[in-house]
Amino acid sequence: MQRRQFIQNASLTALGITAFGGIKAVTRSAAAGNALRVNGKRIESRIFELAKFGMDANGHGTRVAFTQADIEARKWFTALMQRAGLNPTIDTAGNIIGRRKGKNNALKPIAFGSHIDMVPDGGNYDGTLGSIGALEVIEILNEQNVITEHPLELIIFSNEEGGTIGSKAMVGDITKEGLQQRSQSGLTMGEGIRAIGGNPDDIQSCIRKKGDIHAWLELHIEQGGILEKEKIQIGVVEGIVGIVHWEVIVEGFSNHAGATQMNMRQDALLAASKLVIAVNEVITSVKGTQVGTVGKIAVQPGAYNVIPGKVQMGLEIRDLSAEKIEMLFKEIEKRAAMIAKASKTNIRFERQPNESKPALTDKKLQQTIQATAKSLGFSTKFMQSGAGHDTQHVGMIAPAAMIFIPSVGGISHSPKEFSTAIDMENGANVLLQTILAIDKG
Amino acid sequence: MQRRQFIQNASLTALGITAFGGIKAVTRSAAAGNALRVNGKRIESRIFELAKFGMDANGHGTRVAFTQADIEARKWFTALMQRAGLNPTIDTAGNIIGRRKGKNNALKPIAFGSHIDMVPDGGNYDGTLGSIGALEVIEILNEQNVITEHPLELIIFSNEEGGTIGSKAMVGDITKEGLQQRSQSGLTMGEGIRAIGGNPDDIQSCIRKKGDIHAWLELHIEQGGILEKEKIQIGVVEGIVGIVHWEVIVEGFSNHAGATQMNMRQDALLAASKLVIAVNEVITSVKGTQVGTVGKIAVQPGAYNVIPGKVQMGLEIRDLSAEKIEMLFKEIEKRAAMIAKASKTNIRFERQPNESKPALTDKKLQQTIQATAKSLGFSTKFMQSGAGHDTQHVGMIAPAAMIFIPSVGGISHSPKEFSTAIDMENGANVLLQTILAIDKG
Repeated sequence: MQRRQFIQNASLTALGITAFGGIKAVTRSAAAGNALRVNGKRIESRIFELAKFGMDANGHGTRVAFTQADIEARKWFTALMQRAGLNPTIDTAGNIIGRRKGKNNALKPIAFGSHIDMVPDGGNYDGTLGSIGALEVIEILNEQNVITEHPLELIIFSNEEGGTIGSKAMVGDITKEGLQQRSQSGLTMGEGIRAIGGNPDDIQSCIRKKGDIHAWLELHIEQGGILEKEKIQIGVVEGIVGIVHWEVIVEGFSNHAGATQMNMRQDALLAASKLVIAVNEVITSVKGTQVGTVGKIAVQPGAYNVIPGKVQMGLEIRDLSAEKIEMLFKEIEKRAAMIAKASKTNIRFERQPNESKPALTDKKLQQTIQATAKSLGFSTKFMQSGAGHDTQHVGMIAPAAMIFIPSVGGISHSPKEFSTAIDMENGANVLLQTILAIDKG
Repeated sequence: MQRRQFIQNASLTALGITAFGGIKAVTRSAAAGNALRVNGKRIESRIFELAKFGMDANGHGTRVAFTQADIEARKWFTALMQRAGLNPTIDTAGNIIGRRKGKNNALKPIAFGSHIDMVPDGGNYDGTLGSIGALEVIEILNEQNVITEHPLELIIFSNEEGGTIGSKAMVGDITKEGLQQRSQSGLTMGEGIRAIGGNPDDIQSCIRKKGDIHAWLELHIEQGGILEKEKIQIGVVEGIVGIVHWEVIVEGFSNHAGATQMNMRQDALLAASKLVIAVNEVITSVKGTQVGTVGKIAVQPGAYNVIPGKVQMGLEIRDLSAEKIEMLFKEIEKRAAMIAKASKTNIRFERQPNESKPALTDKKLQQTIQATAKSLGFSTKFMQSGAGHDTQHVGMIAPAAMIFIPSVGGISHSPKEFSTAIDMENGANVLLQTILAIDKG
């Protein structure tokens, strides 16, 4: 990879771009943009630099939104934006917004970016690639003196991992109650937004209306293993899955595990285990990329020598189609009713209020990304995003799309999260060229 | 039941025994004992009285060994023993021991009793019936001026529910380390024994040798539902099952529940669920009364949106045959290996050090109980005890046996634990007549 990196840099130099951001004297028009390439080495070194914010002694990342590590990382990133001439400001939701003028500033901006907060013990690529990649686009345009027709906007959304708070606020989807909600930092969302320079009392001032943004693009790691497995370089995201959560309560009868014969039991854990398997069977019984997970379970009373009387589990289903989620859930409910009857238990589902609707990305932008990636010589795949992203909210007010690059081992939300320097560079080049293509119209 | 109770009492009066313990003037010899019957109403009222110790405002029992409620209940019981002329003493393990002289005090005593401590949120019949029933035997013998050949001993063992501590100590099975172990009261076993009047520093003084006790009998509720289901009045216990515990660790791979496709998962909970079902299948695949339970489970990290990376469970197997326990476990291990392979997880079993060996009761005593119950007109069944009891330890130094009566609904270790007054009376009459039969030799 190091060798390949060297060759790549050498070829960039051949194209007239020095590896470390030396600015060429010749001013170029946007029309000359086809030959522009990002500086992959700079992206990688900034990924490593950003990773240091909130990294504990064991190398685990703790840069949770609204914490001191998040605040310091935002300062570092804002200083880079400043240096790149973006005059960054912070909106009332705590989003960092930088602007680069275009030739025609009456046009609505082309916006792009991601987030730099992380889940507890998370990885160093989720969000950060899209943020650093977006900044890299600006750096290259600066270095090559390329001025786009449209103004450009770089947006770093606040608290993505704790509920896509910044992007929700920007589309007017944060309520007063939402601001009272406790974030993982310990602060409420409102307190957290204030801590990073926003103003929760005036949250509606950050709202963008439909038509305020010409287009939105987000570069991101896949967080799954499909691209790597299929040896594809660029994923064109067709949509972001909807997510529904249920608490599942299985009630049996708690009794003495020694004195109660096997045929006289109403074992809630045995019934719950059958349901966990049924969930897996139902989800995998139809074609498609839907996922269903039982990620948590608790049993009462919970002792070696007591037959479980009650089990509570968390069920999650995700898919691009809301109808499919409902269909799969109905099938799971049917299986649960059969299990309950056979095991003399009671099983009920409590649908949780925090569901996300599926969000399709813009078809035309998908085509532009696809064509751009192909023109750069990359293999591509249309795919869904199984994880939630700020893009799903921005998509409500603007044409929006996402570019995925491979995650090694499909691992995410983990210190083991990793993407190669080449893949990051490829993704940033697709972002750069897609922006230029959109700009040309 | 109330009506049946009335008739029963009326017939007792006809037999020359008043319902509330009035002592007849005529002195009877042990030979006249066949006609003796216990006072069922007194047993039931004492069960209710004892239940008040440690009962909280919601009617739930909290009389855990070594707590204030246990200490007060022991005082109440000791006072009753005192009034019955038993001169109770407390041995160094905290066991309460009362003695009634026989005609020939060179003979070893016939001993009987049970325990009065309970599990947290336990029932009012487990242990208490055997204790109050034993005292009732003494009361009736007193009232009828019956003197047995052998001296009699009434023993209330300390901390049965927390590990049959008192009976283990009596047969020399408590180590110094065992005394350091934390009991459910919060005190160590040693501190608890001291709190109830024992002396942990001199624990070995309580030890009885083989031959010190002529015979031991324990009356107890079944704690299971077999007697009720089969409409049997008296269970003759053939043995107390052995118990082995394993911690089961299932290791998969924790990953993003949205971005990781179904066929790329190593879901520890899905594998664990298959194992829970396999345990049930293996245990029920062979004839017999063996039981196997997965009573506890914990998952890491444990969130809606994260695929479980690790599951830890508790497995328990009980049976009268140690060989059968090993055979069943080997079968479970085989199934686990197959599940692990198919699910790309790792499953391992950690055998716990606290296992109990199966304990068979004395054959001759079983026959005596059986014959006595039949002569009283009761239906009987030879059966195992799925729960552990003090009897399994006493059985190491003396011929020992147990008498079971039905548990309504098979419920135990629960506030819903219940046995009818008639069944308790029947059981105590079998205890009384069995003692007299043993005494005759």
